[in-house]
Amino acid sequence: MENKNPGMTASRNVYLQMKPLAEARRILLEHFPSQAGPGTEFVSVPEAVGRILAAPVTARLSSPPFHLAAMDGIAVAAADTFGCSEVQPIELPVGDKAVYVNTGHVLPPGTDAVIMIEHVEIIDQTRVRIEAPVFPWRNVRKIGEDIVATEQLFPRNHRITPYCVGAILAAGVFSVEVRCRPRVMIIPTGNELVDWQSPQFSELEPGQVLETNGHVLGALVEAAGGTFTLHPIVGDRLDELKAALAAAAGGGFDLIMTVGGSSAGSEDYTKPAVQDLGEVLVHGVTMMPGKPVLLGDIGGLPILGMPGYPVSTIMAFEQFAVPLMTRMLGQPDARRQEVTVHPTRKIPSRLGLEEFVRVKIGRVGEGLVATQLPRAAGCITSLTEADGIIRIPNHSEGVPAHKPATAELLRPSHFIDNTIVIVGSHDNTLDILRDELKSQAPDMSISSSHVGSLGGLMAIKNGVCHLAGSHLLDTADGSYNRSYIRRYLPDREIVQINLVLRDQGLIVPKGNPKEIQGIADLGRDDLTLINRQSGSGTRILLDYELMRHQIDPRAINGYSDEEYTHMAVAVAVLSGTVDVGVGIFAAAKALGLDFIPLVQEQYDLIIPAEHFKTAHLDILLAVINTTRFKNRVVELGGYDTSRTGRASILTPADQENS
Amino acid sequence: MENKNPGMTASRNVYLQMKPLAEARRILLEHFPSQAGPGTEFVSVPEAVGRILAAPVTARLSSPPFHLAAMDGIAVAAADTFGCSEVQPIELPVGDKAVYVNTGHVLPPGTDAVIMIEHVEIIDQTRVRIEAPVFPWRNVRKIGEDIVATEQLFPRNHRITPYCVGAILAAGVFSVEVRCRPRVMIIPTGNELVDWQSPQFSELEPGQVLETNGHVLGALVEAAGGTFTLHPIVGDRLDELKAALAAAAGGGFDLIMTVGGSSAGSEDYTKPAVQDLGEVLVHGVTMMPGKPVLLGDIGGLPILGMPGYPVSTIMAFEQFAVPLMTRMLGQPDARRQEVTVHPTRKIPSRLGLEEFVRVKIGRVGEGLVATQLPRAAGCITSLTEADGIIRIPNHSEGVPAHKPATAELLRPSHFIDNTIVIVGSHDNTLDILRDELKSQAPDMSISSSHVGSLGGLMAIKNGVCHLAGSHLLDTADGSYNRSYIRRYLPDREIVQINLVLRDQGLIVPKGNPKEIQGIADLGRDDLTLINRQSGSGTRILLDYELMRHQIDPRAINGYSDEEYTHMAVAVAVLSGTVDVGVGIFAAAKALGLDFIPLVQEQYDLIIPAEHFKTAHLDILLAVINTTRFKNRVVELGGYDTSRTGRASILTPADQENS
Repeated sequence: MENKNPGMTASRNVYLQMKPLAEARRILLEHFPSQAGPGTEFVSVPEAVGRILAAPVTARLSSPPFHLAAMDGIAVAAADTFGCSEVQPIELPVGDKAVYVNTGHVLPPGTDAVIMIEHVEIIDQTRVRIEAPVFPWRNVRKIGEDIVATEQLFPRNHRITPYCVGAILAAGVFSVEVRCRPRVMIIPTGNELVDWQSPQFSELEPGQVLETNGHVLGALVEAAGGTFTLHPIVGDRLDELKAALAAAAGGGFDLIMTVGGSSAGSEDYTKPAVQDLGEVLVHGVTMMPGKPVLLGDIGGLPILGMPGYPVSTIMAFEQFAVPLMTRMLGQPDARRQEVTVHPTRKIPSRLGLEEFVRVKIGRVGEGLVATQLPRAAGCITSLTEADGIIRIPNHSEGVPAHKPATAELLRPSHFIDNTIVIVGSHDNTLDILRDELKSQAPDMSISSSHVGSLGGLMAIKNGVCHLAGSHLLDTADGSYNRSYIRRYLPDREIVQINLVLRDQGLIVPKGNPKEIQGIADLGRDDLTLINRQSGSGTRILLDYELMRHQIDPRAINGYSDEEYTHMAVAVAVLSGTVDVGVGIFAAAKALGLDFIPLVQEQYDLIIPAEHFKTAHLDILLAVINTTRFKNRVVELGGYDTSRTGRASILTPADQENS
Repeated sequence: MENKNPGMTASRNVYLQMKPLAEARRILLEHFPSQAGPGTEFVSVPEAVGRILAAPVTARLSSPPFHLAAMDGIAVAAADTFGCSEVQPIELPVGDKAVYVNTGHVLPPGTDAVIMIEHVEIIDQTRVRIEAPVFPWRNVRKIGEDIVATEQLFPRNHRITPYCVGAILAAGVFSVEVRCRPRVMIIPTGNELVDWQSPQFSELEPGQVLETNGHVLGALVEAAGGTFTLHPIVGDRLDELKAALAAAAGGGFDLIMTVGGSSAGSEDYTKPAVQDLGEVLVHGVTMMPGKPVLLGDIGGLPILGMPGYPVSTIMAFEQFAVPLMTRMLGQPDARRQEVTVHPTRKIPSRLGLEEFVRVKIGRVGEGLVATQLPRAAGCITSLTEADGIIRIPNHSEGVPAHKPATAELLRPSHFIDNTIVIVGSHDNTLDILRDELKSQAPDMSISSSHVGSLGGLMAIKNGVCHLAGSHLLDTADGSYNRSYIRRYLPDREIVQINLVLRDQGLIVPKGNPKEIQGIADLGRDDLTLINRQSGSGTRILLDYELMRHQIDPRAINGYSDEEYTHMAVAVAVLSGTVDVGVGIFAAAKALGLDFIPLVQEQYDLIIPAEHFKTAHLDILLAVINTTRFKNRVVELGGYDTSRTGRASILTPADQENS
C-alpha cells in the first residue's frame, strides 16, 4: 500500500456546486429522456413472472373456449325437461337427449344444461329418469364466462404475477412482450481493493480492502429488475478509469456505475474521467450518507459515480439508480411503508444536509420506539440491523426525543411487532439466544442494543425496551442488580431472571507479554488500559476493584478511553494499541487473547412485569430454559448456567412496604 | 373427447369426512415432522440473496480489518500534537511523524489520528505545520468499528438481503450455508388437457382445455422459495397416475402435487391412487374455492391433490403448500397486509364453508370500499382483478353491506390509493383508457366494474366509486344522462364529461344468415335474442326502440335472458345459441360478427365534483384529451371522438332553483 503525497502531487478537485437531493434527482431524470431504455423482448408466459408488460395483453381465445359442464351429470336440452315433476317424471334416451358428462367436458351439441348425477335416476344403459326440470345454462360454464376473446387482460406496464400466468395462458397467449431488464455495468475502483473471487486471493493483507460494494450493488440491481455485469477492479488511475468507462459506454448497457473515487480527493478520478468523456451533471449532493455522488452523461448514457462507503453507495443507489431503473421499466416510484415512531433519544442533524438515519424500531407498549444506529457511512451493519430509516430534511436540526417522527420501514411491520427489544449490557450469549429463538420460533426476532447495564435500566424506565441485560454489582452486599432496580425503578413490578453467571477478568495479548497478574498491575507506568463506559457493569466492577486495591484511577494510562462492548475491548487489545482491558472470557477466547479471571458475576434479564406476562416473553423464556441453549452457552467457555432461568419478582417499593 | 358413462361404468368415490380448513392444515403439518425438508447447501454469498441461512453467520474478519484513515490528510501520533496552537504551531517531518494518507488507507504504525488536509500547512516536501492539537482516533475508522471478528452477524433462518451481502463479505465470509429450495413435482392430470408447449400443438380443438394450472403452480412454488418440475400431462387413468406418483415419490422431491382429479367424480383418480400407494390424510376441506383438495402421504412425502379449477388450485396451494414450504424453509407463516373495508353490497356465504371472496378495493372518500368479483372457481380473472380477499368463516352467513370487514391485500395499499374506481356501463374504450393511463402515469390504475349505467349512478349515490360510465337516453328529449343525474343524484354537484360517441346496433352472426334488417325483425318467431340487464343504457335503448316499433317484448324469444356486457352479448351470438343482440360495433368487430347500426349514442363519464377536483382525475382527463387516446379509440371503429373531453357541470337542483 503506497502512501503517496497527495498534498503535493495532485490538486484536489473541489465539488462543483452541491445540490439538494430532490434537485439532483430532477436534473438526472430530466436530462435522460423517459423513452430511453432497454427496449422490449418477447418471452414465454411462464418465464414472464415479475416482468413488466411492454404492450397490453389481449385475449386470443375465450375462456372457457366452449360451453363446458360445470358438474358431473347428464347434459340435456333444458326445454326437454320443462313440465316434469316427481309425480310426472320423464324418461330420456341416453346418448341422444341425455349425454353423460363430467365436469369440464364440452357440452354436446343440442344441449344447454347439466343435471347433477345425484339427481338422475338411471333406469338402464339406455334410459334415465328425471323428476325436476332444469333451467337453461344450469351447471354450465358458458363460453367466455371468464375471458372473452379480444378483450384486454392487462395494460402495458403491468407486472406479471403467477396469477396472471393463468389468465394469459387461458386466453391462448403463450408469449408476451415485456420490457427488457435494464443492463447495468458496475465498475469498482480503488488501489486498496482486492477481489476475493480472484484465484490469486488467499487472505487479506494489511492495507487491502475486500471489494464488497460491487456485489451489493449487483444484488440491488437485480432486486430493482435489472441485470448487471461486474467489471474487474480498476485502479486509481485516470487513464485506466477512462478506458473502462469508454468501453462500457459502447458495451450495450443502459446504466453505468463506478464505485469509489467519486469524491473530491486527489485520487478520486470519477469526475475528471466523466468530464473528459462526457458531461458531469451533478457532483456532490447534500445528503448523508451519500454526499460524494456524481451524476453524469457519457454518450447519452447515465453514469452514476457512487461513493465508496458501503452505506453511502447503497443510499446513492436507492436515490438515483432506482428512480432511473423504475422509469426504464415503466414502473411507479418504489415506496416503503411509513410508520410513526417515537425516537428514544434526540437525533441531531446538520443543517443543510438531508440525513438518512438508520434506526431500530420496536413495539414497546402502545407505540413504536426508534433508536438510532451508528451513523458512520462505513458501517454496513447500521443498515443490516436497521428496521427503518428516518429522513431528516435539509432545513432541520434534528428530531427531538419522544416526539412522533416518520420512519420508512425496511422490514414488514409484523416483523417489528414480533421483535423483542433488549437494551443494556452486552453479553455474547445474547447472540446464541437470538439464534436459538429464530430457530425455534422463526417468526420472532431479537433486537439488542448495547448501552451498558445502567443504560438498560434507564431504557426500561423510559419505556423503550421489553427487557434489559444487566450485571450491576452492589459493592455493599455483593448482590447483583436488585438494589439498582430498587433505586432506578422504585415504582415498577420487575422480574429478574438469571441468564448466565460469567467470568470477568483482564483481557491481555496472547502470551501475556507484559506479565500482568491482576488488578494491582493496572497502576504500572508501562501499561495502557482500555476502559468501559460509565454506567456499564464492567466499569462499576473495575472501579470497585481499583478502590479495593487503593489504585488512583487518574494514575492509569488510558483510563479515560472508553469502549462500549466486551468485543470492542478485546479488539483494542488485539490491535496492540492497549495492553489490557476488563471483559468477559468469551470475548478474549473469541479473538485468541489471554484472560486473567477476576470474579464470577451474575448477568440477569430485567423484565417489567407488563412485558413478562406476554406470549413473546413466554417463548423467549422457554428457549432460555432449553438444554440446547445452555449447552451452547457452556461451550463458549467462561459461563456457568447453574442458575440460568431462575426468576425472582421485585414488587414496587411502596407495595413492599405496605 | 369421449363422453363415457360414469353413472354405469365406475363408482363415484365419495368424500371422506370433510375437514375445516384449520383442522386440515393442522393434520397436514402435524403429520410431517418439522425437521423434514430439503437439507442445506453452501452457496457463494452474492448468489445467496433471497436464501435462508441454515446456520448463523459468524464474522471471520473484523471490518475495518485495520485502523483506517477516515479522511484525506496526514496521519500523526495524537500525542505529538498536544499543546500546539495558532500562536505555538508545531512542525512535523513528513514520512516520519506525519504521513500523507487518503480516505481508506491503513493507519501507519505509530499513528493514531488523522488531521484533515485542509488543516495542514505544507511547508515543503519534507515538513508540514500544524496549528491545533488532535485527539487520539480522530478521523480514524478503528479496527472492528463495523464488525468484530467472531461476532454473530445473522442468526439462522435469516433471509439474506442485498444489504446482508455487504456485511457478510466485509466479514471475510464468502460462502454461507443455506436451506435448499424445496423441490416440488407438479403432475397435471386430465384427458381434456393439452400441452401448448408440445410440438404437436397448433390450435385448441373442441373439447380440449389448455393446461395452465401447472405453470401457475410452478410460478407460485418459485415465489414461495422452491423449485419445480412440471410432469407431462397424465390421463384420467388410475394406473397412469399411480405410475407417475410412484416415480415422483422416489425422485428426490420434497413435495408432490397432482392437479385435477382430486374430487369425488368417477374420473377422479387422485384418491384411489394415493390410497393404493400410501395414505389419504384429508379428502375434502370446507373451504371455497378449494373444497375438493386431498392431503396425503406416500412414503413419508407430502402429496397434495389440487383441484382442477384455477382459483381452487391457487387457494389450496396458498393454504396447504405454502405453510409446508415456509416451514421447510424455517420461515414464519406468510402474511398479507390486512385492511378494513366496507363492502358495497351484502356478500352472502354458505354456512359451513370458509369462503375466500375476491374483491376489488377502492379508496373513495375517507375509507376503502370493497366490491365482490365473480365467485366461480373457474374464473382466474377474479384473482387477477382482485385487490384483496375477504375471508368469511364457516359459521357466518356472510358480510353485510357497508359494515366494516377485514380484507387481506393482494396489492400494496398505495396501489389501491392510486386506483380510479369506475363503475357503470361497459365500453371497450375503457380498456384503452386503462392502458394509456398506465402508460403515461405508471403509478395509477383503473378498476372498472360493469353493472350498467343506472348501476353506475347508484354507485355514485352510495359513494363506492370515483366516477361512472353512463349512456342513459332520455326518450322524451333525446338527451343523454342529464335527466337521470337530476333524478337519481339531485343534491350532488356533478361533472358530465363525454368519453365517446358510439354506434349501437344489432350484433348478428357473420354473413347475417337470418337476414335481419332492423328492430322490426326482433318480433320474428324464428329469432332468439340475448338481452342486456335492466338498468343498462343498452336495455333502455332496446326497450325504447321496441316501443317505437310497437313490438311486445314478451313476444321475443330470449328477451328474459340477460348478459352484463357488450362482449358477453357478442359471445352469445358467436356461440350460435342466439341469433341477435344489441351492442356496440366494437364488440361485433372484435369477434368478427356482423353489425346493423341503429343509433349513435353518447357515452359519458359522470363525476361527482368532489372527485373531479383531485390530482388523479386531472391526470385521467389529461389522458382522455391526448391525441393518442382518441386515435386508438377511432381505430376500434364505430366510435366518434369529436366531443371527447367536453365537460358540463350540473349544480345541485336546489342551487339551480335558487
